[in-house]
Amino acid sequence: MLLPAAGAPARQRGRALQSALRDAVRSGRLAAGTRLPSSRELAADLGVSRGLVTEAYEQLTAEGYLRSGRGSGTWVGEAARAGVRATRDLAPRAPGVRVDFRPGTPDLSLFPRAAWVAAQKSVLARLPHQALGYPDPRGLPELRTALAELLTRRRGVVADPECLVVCSGVTQATTVLGLVLHGHGVRAIGVEDPGSPGHGPVFTAAGMGMVPLPLDGGGLAMEPLRRSGVRAVMTTPAHQFPSGIAYSAQRRVELLDWARAVDGVIFEDDYDGDFRYDRAPVGALQGLDPDRVAYSGSVSKSLAPGLRLGWLLVPPRLMDEVVERKRTMDLGNPALDQALLADFIARGGYDRQLRRCQRAYRERRDALVRALGEHLPGTEVSGIAAGLHIIARLPERYGPESRLLECADRAGVAVRALSAHLTVPVEEPGVRLVIGYAHLAPSDIARGVRLLARAAGSR
Amino acid sequence: MLLPAAGAPARQRGRALQSALRDAVRSGRLAAGTRLPSSRELAADLGVSRGLVTEAYEQLTAEGYLRSGRGSGTWVGEAARAGVRATRDLAPRAPGVRVDFRPGTPDLSLFPRAAWVAAQKSVLARLPHQALGYPDPRGLPELRTALAELLTRRRGVVADPECLVVCSGVTQATTVLGLVLHGHGVRAIGVEDPGSPGHGPVFTAAGMGMVPLPLDGGGLAMEPLRRSGVRAVMTTPAHQFPSGIAYSAQRRVELLDWARAVDGVIFEDDYDGDFRYDRAPVGALQGLDPDRVAYSGSVSKSLAPGLRLGWLLVPPRLMDEVVERKRTMDLGNPALDQALLADFIARGGYDRQLRRCQRAYRERRDALVRALGEHLPGTEVSGIAAGLHIIARLPERYGPESRLLECADRAGVAVRALSAHLTVPVEEPGVRLVIGYAHLAPSDIARGVRLLARAAGSR
Repeated sequence: MLLPAAGAPARQRGRALQSALRDAVRSGRLAAGTRLPSSRELAADLGVSRGLVTEAYEQLTAEGYLRSGRGSGTWVGEAARAGVRATRDLAPRAPGVRVDFRPGTPDLSLFPRAAWVAAQKSVLARLPHQALGYPDPRGLPELRTALAELLTRRRGVVADPECLVVCSGVTQATTVLGLVLHGHGVRAIGVEDPGSPGHGPVFTAAGMGMVPLPLDGGGLAMEPLRRSGVRAVMTTPAHQFPSGIAYSAQRRVELLDWARAVDGVIFEDDYDGDFRYDRAPVGALQGLDPDRVAYSGSVSKSLAPGLRLGWLLVPPRLMDEVVERKRTMDLGNPALDQALLADFIARGGYDRQLRRCQRAYRERRDALVRALGEHLPGTEVSGIAAGLHIIARLPERYGPESRLLECADRAGVAVRALSAHLTVPVEEPGVRLVIGYAHLAPSDIARGVRLLARAAGSR
Repeated sequence: MLLPAAGAPARQRGRALQSALRDAVRSGRLAAGTRLPSSRELAADLGVSRGLVTEAYEQLTAEGYLRSGRGSGTWVGEAARAGVRATRDLAPRAPGVRVDFRPGTPDLSLFPRAAWVAAQKSVLARLPHQALGYPDPRGLPELRTALAELLTRRRGVVADPECLVVCSGVTQATTVLGLVLHGHGVRAIGVEDPGSPGHGPVFTAAGMGMVPLPLDGGGLAMEPLRRSGVRAVMTTPAHQFPSGIAYSAQRRVELLDWARAVDGVIFEDDYDGDFRYDRAPVGALQGLDPDRVAYSGSVSKSLAPGLRLGWLLVPPRLMDEVVERKRTMDLGNPALDQALLADFIARGGYDRQLRRCQRAYRERRDALVRALGEHLPGTEVSGIAAGLHIIARLPERYGPESRLLECADRAGVAVRALSAHLTVPVEEPGVRLVIGYAHLAPSDIARGVRLLARAAGSR
């Protein structure tokens, strides 16, 4: 048994003794039923005071590792195997990839670290102690007010702070809303096809089935939606993911008419609505009918997904149930993070950050389109007006898709086909790729496209 | 219509025009079906360029607020009422209370603000960009490692970082574990009676019924537990809430035997296990059998509930399902908060904070016991060895309970009776109160007890 040297304080030596005994019982080195030496004997063996040993025996007896016999003596009680393994990291990464064109992540190097530290400092200098207590499950009033103003101004939503819930990104918004709708007897939700594969497990966890619904040029095709029988649908009207189309004005009106007719709910995922490069962003669908549209967004694309901060605006009639779900799920988002974001927004930091990203991403989009034209001539690009990715349709000669993806993979280029977003992949000439560019420097974009072109032509 | 002065940049004037039109449609001032003036007319009326008006009409048409007729002209389309109310705060507060003895909150003024800012700064100076991306749903590896070390050392748990999930406090741990057990067909969980009323709605939301189980001097009484038929039970063995008893060594062993016999799970809520004043803390039950005990705790009592940071250690066989629930609930806790806490722990800040709180709370406990002896003589106190509250049994002459609570309320003293924690309140002579003291300065404690004594004697 290794104990701190005799010069160490008794408390430290006592703790070490207890810890060593606990480990010995757990690891099985001291098997259940083993009788321990008397405190006098062990103290002499270890060269420590008898009191230290007595205390250790008492403590471990109180914890159930040891038991004291009726007469005298101390025995080993129940035991457990310890064995601490090395800590692994399950965060989504792409080891061995030279250029990763998969969409979904912004440029994390644009995160405003200095401004964030300054905001944290400013917040902790003035926040009343009370704000560190159990929070309003909907979020800090100052953040809800700031977000309502921001979303009204930037996204054209009708944002009543009383109907806004701060949450851990669109994922939590989806879980919360899914559970609330489930409570109303809704068992299936329509989803765009192609769409985001990430929502599947979230709806499943909420007990909700998914009904994939096709798109046409204007957005979700209305006839299949009407025939489907669903009463809830998840959409990305500002910039459909992944096709990149913006819902037409007519389709927006038709969709709302449908929702009113079936007494349904539209869940608007405004995942990258802030990023539009050649004109002003298209306003959110929610602004047209906040009684029919639940609206969600987050800072995952504008700041960082790791912040896990987003918002959910819900039709007033669902608000109480949404708040109750949020409350039982985690009592509310972390208060300091919320105060920090409110401060950041109030000082204009959020608008500045969006402008900064907007400039960087427009430049990267242009670099991507240029590189595709140069190295993969004949490629048609679409969905380039907004967002963090585009759709590239490569000429037939680069197909078939499986072959191209295999070659890209071998070349160290991670890229996803549009078909991966489809429930039933359609056979078509050529290959359509979903290419994310926001997280890549222009030089990496050019290099990635060169590698892709070489791989595509290497057969 | 109020637009920025003619000197303002065109972009700013254009945005203001769009915003004003949107508001007018939403508020109903421009009713659906109204025909708008031509762009030429409106431009002349407002003294702006015609292009600005055309652009505004186009933008709002794209968003569905306006529609363009087949021939010419622009009409108002669908509309929504805006009406932003003032932001309310639903955080639990006690307005009008002079001294609040209700338990559950630590002293928020002890939150180490300066160290927190320093940790944030240090973290943001060295964190790789990648750490700001989508996180490991179990938590940052560095925090899981730090917590595993901390909990092993301080609480005697068997903490394998691979079986540790960082979560938003014990509430989220309860929801996650509740949903996982529900998935295994568990529909009811045994809870201590008296116990924490907060868990009720959380279990209910997870589809779980509660079976209240009585206590005896050693902890949860075994016979009623065995008879109840439950296979899962939530316990507070280190410091039962609210009675304050520590489970006896024998009861710990009996409880584990029961769990093994019914192939069940014990959920250990170690809500304040770090605070023990007169001897070393009693180690956690989980350390005796990590295959049968799920263990949860948080920084809510040691730092602040507003941080929403806690941990859940689960039996290895449940780990995958727990992680999947956490993933679909929010994808994981905020990465920066986690890195910050890991840094704080690694620099010894957490141990320092516990020592600081320990000193402050011991002093307050002593002040409370002293004040009760002085102003409410004959009061018996129990559960004083640990935690942030005590149980005070007032002599019969101060009863009945309802009358005492009414008088306390009128005197501005918020205090809770033990009976409020019981499923079926028992008739007994005298009044037993649960008195939280950790969040109160010694002078406030003395004042509160004086007020209470005056109120109790005022009839």
